Amino acid sequence: MEKLWIKNLRDIEPYVPGEQSGEKDIVKINANENPYPPSPKAVEAIRNFNAQLLRFYPNANATPLKQAIADYYNVDIKNVFLGNGSDDVIAIAFQALFNSDLPIVYPDLTYSFYPVWCSLFGIPYKNYPVDENFRINVEDYREKNGGVIIPNPNAPTSLGEGREFVEKLMEYNRDSIVVIDEAYVDFGGFSSVELTKKYENLLVTGTFSKSRSLAGLRIGFAIGSEKLISVLEAVKNSYNSYTIDSVSIEAGRASILDDEYFRETCDKIIRTRARVTDDMRALGFKVLDSQTNFIFATKDDMSMKDMFEYLKTKKVFIRYFSVPRIENYVRITIGTDEEMNVFLNELKEYVK
Amino acid sequence: MEKLWIKNLRDIEPYVPGEQSGEKDIVKINANENPYPPSPKAVEAIRNFNAQLLRFYPNANATPLKQAIADYYNVDIKNVFLGNGSDDVIAIAFQALFNSDLPIVYPDLTYSFYPVWCSLFGIPYKNYPVDENFRINVEDYREKNGGVIIPNPNAPTSLGEGREFVEKLMEYNRDSIVVIDEAYVDFGGFSSVELTKKYENLLVTGTFSKSRSLAGLRIGFAIGSEKLISVLEAVKNSYNSYTIDSVSIEAGRASILDDEYFRETCDKIIRTRARVTDDMRALGFKVLDSQTNFIFATKDDMSMKDMFEYLKTKKVFIRYFSVPRIENYVRITIGTDEEMNVFLNELKEYVK
Repeated sequence: MEKLWIKNLRDIEPYVPGEQSGEKDIVKINANENPYPPSPKAVEAIRNFNAQLLRFYPNANATPLKQAIADYYNVDIKNVFLGNGSDDVIAIAFQALFNSDLPIVYPDLTYSFYPVWCSLFGIPYKNYPVDENFRINVEDYREKNGGVIIPNPNAPTSLGEGREFVEKLMEYNRDSIVVIDEAYVDFGGFSSVELTKKYENLLVTGTFSKSRSLAGLRIGFAIGSEKLISVLEAVKNSYNSYTIDSVSIEAGRASILDDEYFRETCDKIIRTRARVTDDMRALGFKVLDSQTNFIFATKDDMSMKDMFEYLKTKKVFIRYFSVPRIENYVRITIGTDEEMNVFLNELKEYVK
Repeated sequence: MEKLWIKNLRDIEPYVPGEQSGEKDIVKINANENPYPPSPKAVEAIRNFNAQLLRFYPNANATPLKQAIADYYNVDIKNVFLGNGSDDVIAIAFQALFNSDLPIVYPDLTYSFYPVWCSLFGIPYKNYPVDENFRINVEDYREKNGGVIIPNPNAPTSLGEGREFVEKLMEYNRDSIVVIDEAYVDFGGFSSVELTKKYENLLVTGTFSKSRSLAGLRIGFAIGSEKLISVLEAVKNSYNSYTIDSVSIEAGRASILDDEYFRETCDKIIRTRARVTDDMRALGFKVLDSQTNFIFATKDDMSMKDMFEYLKTKKVFIRYFSVPRIENYVRITIGTDEEMNVFLNELKEYVK
């Protein structure tokens, strides 16, 4: 006999997070993690953290970190929202800002969590296909909608859009809330943070997991008008008052304050990216013009799935998506120069 | 003209977290925080944490911490769920397990977040008043319902129920999912963890914030049948795959492994509680028999609100709730013996 309480369980497809290999001696360029360690100042903040304070709840507003972010982006602290990684931030944005009967809209090729959140929160959605060059056509976004979310630069395509695109998007969406997910912006993309001062209905989200090498600490943020931020805070405080722990507050703050290290590591990744792009193109690959810490590539006469499997046997882990339209593409995170040399050598072997 | 996008904002009452004073030289016995630092092993785990690893995402299953909890409670790792504090765990349990058209039920005097989550997730609810001695009447819970949540011991009443109560509750609720919130259980309450093996529809939640002095790190957990845990995991992974950061995984694990320190500090708090209870009763207070790290007390001929305000002027911060039925009670967290001496001396002065 089926137990009656079973019917009260949420019927939901389990989302399986990407595989993480614990193996050593591998080149792990499959999760868009930063190959360089976090700022030494952040490391020091953890080492010197006064653990006696852990018996207290964290600062509920995470003020020290929030203020550092506000200062860095030249906005008021009331324009900053913080969450447990940018997944938490965007999930809260979905709940707080997308409450229309009309579908929210976003590109067909994009972050795979968007439809998962729509399903979890019962939000209708609609996709506009990116064009044959994987570019987002801003004209699609003129149609009446319940909200817009666009990653800029986009993943996994690595392509970014500039000010003109964003201004048009905002012009077409005066009646909607627009969220721009800038997880990868620090690697050469155009940031819309400044435009949040012009458009009260624009929210920009960011993360410490990529450019700041702090994926392990779970820090995400959003910047927008006081109006939008206050609703995010209301939803967050109805869920969990203390999402950012005390160690993350201190280490995150130290990272923001060390701008020199931040710029240096971003620049290093951008330089490595340029070199890998050139080398792969020389090998006959089509490599999109990346504004992120990864590249998106294909080779017309070659199965990318086979190549991905081959590289795995050589302990080089890149990412392959078995997704329509991009089933012959791979996503390669930019690692250190040494890691990319191993990758390129294995690639040359394979292509030969 | 009202902007049209405003109507898409979630209409939600902002929940204001309890005030935290940054002041020094105060006796802060108002937030049920532990007066003793976390285990030295946990402190060491943070100091020795290899911050170079922070560039990687945390272990998505938080396996090292989950396994330590499983071993500690003598269950399988598949019976353990982890979240960003027990607020996150319980909020996910509400979404995952309370999907009936019938109201979920819980006592009228209890954790103030339950109705907030019901409102956030649109879950109907109904309260059964605790009796004149603030005890939960298990017979109330025979009525058909959409789920049950009971904190045991309860807050702010400090009262706990034993095995007989829980067995009856489970017998009356064969068709419902029952969640028992054991945030305070380590200070002398009866734990239902063992009963999760007998009842597949029983979930027990716990936290590292009270007895383990790790409120600053945000670690909560749940223990239950594989069936229940798998649905919690599905909801959690649809929201945010990486809620427990890498530092918390290590420090939490170290705390669990240091059982001697854990028992020592819990025992110290229990001893101090007994003494404070006796001293307050000698002063004419009615003090409930606490199984928690706080006491709930009143004095018939005295305004507890005035007393609370007076103590504040003396830099002793206790908790007063302006809530019907308990508007002449105060909640006092058990601090160190020194802190409680300061409190008791000020109390004697005031009562005189």
